[in-house]
Amino acid sequence: MVQDTVNEVKESKKAAKKEAKKAEKAAKKAEHKSNQPSEVPAVEEVDVSSGKYGNFPLICSDVTLPQRNFIYIKELAKNLAGKTVWVRARLHAVRARGKQCFIVLRQREHTVQVLINVSESISKSMVKFSSGITKESIVDVEAKVSEVAAGVAGCSQQDVELIASEIWVVSSSAPQLPLQIEDAARPEKSEDEGLNIRVNQDTRLDNRILDLRTPANQAIFRLEAGVCKLFRDTLSGKGFTEIHTPKIISAASEGGANVFTVSYFKGSAYLAQSPQLYKQMAIAADFEKVYTVGAVFRAEDSNTHRHLTEFVGLDLEMAFNYHYHEVMLTIGDLFNSIFKGLRDNYSKEIEIVRQQYNVEPFTFLEPPLVLQFNDARKLLGEAGVEVGEEDDLSTPAEKLLGRLVKAKYDTDFYILDKYPLAVRPFYTMPDPNNKIASNSYDMFMRGEEIISGAQRIHDPVLLTERAKHHGIDLTKIAAYIDAFKFGCPPHAGGGIGMERVVMLYLGLDNIRKTSMFPRDPKRITP
Amino acid sequence: MVQDTVNEVKESKKAAKKEAKKAEKAAKKAEHKSNQPSEVPAVEEVDVSSGKYGNFPLICSDVTLPQRNFIYIKELAKNLAGKTVWVRARLHAVRARGKQCFIVLRQREHTVQVLINVSESISKSMVKFSSGITKESIVDVEAKVSEVAAGVAGCSQQDVELIASEIWVVSSSAPQLPLQIEDAARPEKSEDEGLNIRVNQDTRLDNRILDLRTPANQAIFRLEAGVCKLFRDTLSGKGFTEIHTPKIISAASEGGANVFTVSYFKGSAYLAQSPQLYKQMAIAADFEKVYTVGAVFRAEDSNTHRHLTEFVGLDLEMAFNYHYHEVMLTIGDLFNSIFKGLRDNYSKEIEIVRQQYNVEPFTFLEPPLVLQFNDARKLLGEAGVEVGEEDDLSTPAEKLLGRLVKAKYDTDFYILDKYPLAVRPFYTMPDPNNKIASNSYDMFMRGEEIISGAQRIHDPVLLTERAKHHGIDLTKIAAYIDAFKFGCPPHAGGGIGMERVVMLYLGLDNIRKTSMFPRDPKRITP
Repeated sequence: MVQDTVNEVKESKKAAKKEAKKAEKAAKKAEHKSNQPSEVPAVEEVDVSSGKYGNFPLICSDVTLPQRNFIYIKELAKNLAGKTVWVRARLHAVRARGKQCFIVLRQREHTVQVLINVSESISKSMVKFSSGITKESIVDVEAKVSEVAAGVAGCSQQDVELIASEIWVVSSSAPQLPLQIEDAARPEKSEDEGLNIRVNQDTRLDNRILDLRTPANQAIFRLEAGVCKLFRDTLSGKGFTEIHTPKIISAASEGGANVFTVSYFKGSAYLAQSPQLYKQMAIAADFEKVYTVGAVFRAEDSNTHRHLTEFVGLDLEMAFNYHYHEVMLTIGDLFNSIFKGLRDNYSKEIEIVRQQYNVEPFTFLEPPLVLQFNDARKLLGEAGVEVGEEDDLSTPAEKLLGRLVKAKYDTDFYILDKYPLAVRPFYTMPDPNNKIASNSYDMFMRGEEIISGAQRIHDPVLLTERAKHHGIDLTKIAAYIDAFKFGCPPHAGGGIGMERVVMLYLGLDNIRKTSMFPRDPKRITP
Repeated sequence: MVQDTVNEVKESKKAAKKEAKKAEKAAKKAEHKSNQPSEVPAVEEVDVSSGKYGNFPLICSDVTLPQRNFIYIKELAKNLAGKTVWVRARLHAVRARGKQCFIVLRQREHTVQVLINVSESISKSMVKFSSGITKESIVDVEAKVSEVAAGVAGCSQQDVELIASEIWVVSSSAPQLPLQIEDAARPEKSEDEGLNIRVNQDTRLDNRILDLRTPANQAIFRLEAGVCKLFRDTLSGKGFTEIHTPKIISAASEGGANVFTVSYFKGSAYLAQSPQLYKQMAIAADFEKVYTVGAVFRAEDSNTHRHLTEFVGLDLEMAFNYHYHEVMLTIGDLFNSIFKGLRDNYSKEIEIVRQQYNVEPFTFLEPPLVLQFNDARKLLGEAGVEVGEEDDLSTPAEKLLGRLVKAKYDTDFYILDKYPLAVRPFYTMPDPNNKIASNSYDMFMRGEEIISGAQRIHDPVLLTERAKHHGIDLTKIAAYIDAFKFGCPPHAGGGIGMERVVMLYLGLDNIRKTSMFPRDPKRITP
């Protein structure tokens, strides 16, 4: 049955070729044809375009298929005027007008106009066929590049258009689209605010393969790949080694709250909430500086703009000589390398995203601003918000602080050092000079926490004491404490949420915009 | 209580400093001291080395700690002879002989000998303290670099040794080690085979932080990081975009066998066995060429040398124009880039691994060898192993084939193209010219399968037909089929097991040697 389909496909292709030859003969003889192959639409008279359009046979790697060199739409410019080219692209829009058919072809953010005019070599049937191609179908077009004086409205390639000589549907789209790409791509704050359709977040995510085709989404995920590349390249350049840590673990990392349970053969296991123990074990095993990029799982029933149940962690851990600031400032520099890399190498992507989501460009200082927790309390206090010296910052306080810091220092990124010991995990090294402080830091982008880190206690005796102080069952963290029994250098580190970095750098309002297939308490599809 | 510990630590450090001064005075006055700080061992007479050795206070980032510049052991060479340096390293071995103490310090694969001799400035107490430091402790040593004519046996730094003037324990190891590093590092096939202790795989994994400290393991995981880097850099250079795919999924990818179940709030979900659907969705969403590096889960109860329940997948997917060989050869080139990159940039690591596990160097051809499935059947047939034209290759047949190919073509890597349609998954594109074949390929390293890939069916009608033919419940794969409803370019791809690449490239005998914290049906710790 399969083979039938494949054979059918082959046969129809052969038929299409034969047909082209026949059509030639037929044109000469001016005879009427009757034996149309199924892929070429029926015509009532001699079709001068026969063999120049239709549904292309399914591409199943047959060696007898034509081998054409395709050009990218972004390459179509005046210098190619007069040249004949082949383009494979999506049909973004189509409009018939009398004997003409206007098509817009799209590749990612690049678009070009194609004209199909009835002429000596282009039949009415070909124009009719073209105007009936469903939006989002993939087509192969042969065309002459033609210079346009006036500029093509609404297309990225303004200086040229294509005059088609062949058009083939390579993969056809269903006629009913659950969302229109132009709706999904519409600027959020355009002037004709109320008049245009917009697509809500759930509809987008339910139909993610369509939603991802918008220029902004293409740019967001290219930029996200850039964040990972910059993270890795910067740290590799500083002598870090990439490691991979297990996601399936035998005991919940931090006491068992917010952890997903997995059925593991006849027993059960958990999904790691963080690679921290494993990064620390790598340090205890002499890897000195390590990073890891991988999935992190949080079973928090938080339905907010910034929580996911699964996200990509950019984690690092580093041995230091005497002071955890060696690590903290390495992380600060890392962020600046990422910000500079994005600014310098992803300006096009940033601009495309700004066309849809118009937000302020991201600002940062070199070197990064470092504030003490007490500076933050003071700034907030001056703004009328009191924070106790052993209290954590609430999310609203963090956001306000972000605005205050921005106003005072003109930076969207800063480091907040010396959090109260009371609000940090048991493994955080206490400050040796201030009994209520700890050797820990958070870093912020646009007023939202983007990394939490600290010097970890590398001494099993102090670690045990601190665990007891926190009321933690020692039997459950025995393996963790044991990791430090055979000598371990002092070390610090932290974990960054990749999707948050991208969201906050671009100033987007929802983390689901920067996760290709987001997971939250209510969504595990597609 | 914590603060007490921290304060104690601070106090003891101050005490140590005071003590040093006191000792000077004491030496001058030749008076007996009695008020020893706890970290400095008690002596019965004036200790000329007082303040030059002991247990260093816990490093908790106190700003009053000394700021020393440490040198790496690998930098210690003749050109530094006569210079005084500070080294922080592990105490690898220690041996006292009369008034002398010999120490071997270790950093990864680098080792250097340290001498502590009783002298005018080095007390008996200091030598005694030094010889009592537990193996694997981390120590800070101040020493003069001294040229050695004869060469230091058993140390990587043969031309120099260190003459110590200070020694401080920064992080002490428990005295009883569950395994000895020298046992874990011993060559597998040394001449005195039967005489030496070796460490079995489970003991190694149970004590992974110690096991990972061996030179071979340090090299294996640096090389593994290199494989990932070469994979990404090669594909980025070819225009691929890195993506991240969810591990938590709503439906089992391939029919539900071998899949782990996760409790997901009030419902349940699964762990992805492959990122394939998501890579293909990215292709349908116009990303054109994508790769992803991430955890992949297989609930197979296979306790073999090459199966893990969680491993790192190096996956790629790529749209092509007319023939899946465009993709297959891209993957072949990718492997050659990885092999060349390892050979050229990781020769030191390869050599270190070979010192412990002595195997033949990996061979490959440029361009890679491509065999047809029927060529393989013929080769095997000539060797007396018959394989039916619609049969898959058994694991023993694959291994034999690897040996036959190696003998005939002198390559440890080759591509096997055109597998029988009957043995491939339902989404594999049938061969258009041979009804029992498919557009699919496996690739092999040292006779073991390292990647399985194919052209995927991008047409929803043919895909549905093939799923029915395989007896798959269409309702369970509706989302997968729907991904192709709105136009999708022809595409192919495959998934590589990272740990297998490293194992087979280095010729190791067990995949647990190339997974930092391996997971199998019987192990989810540490």
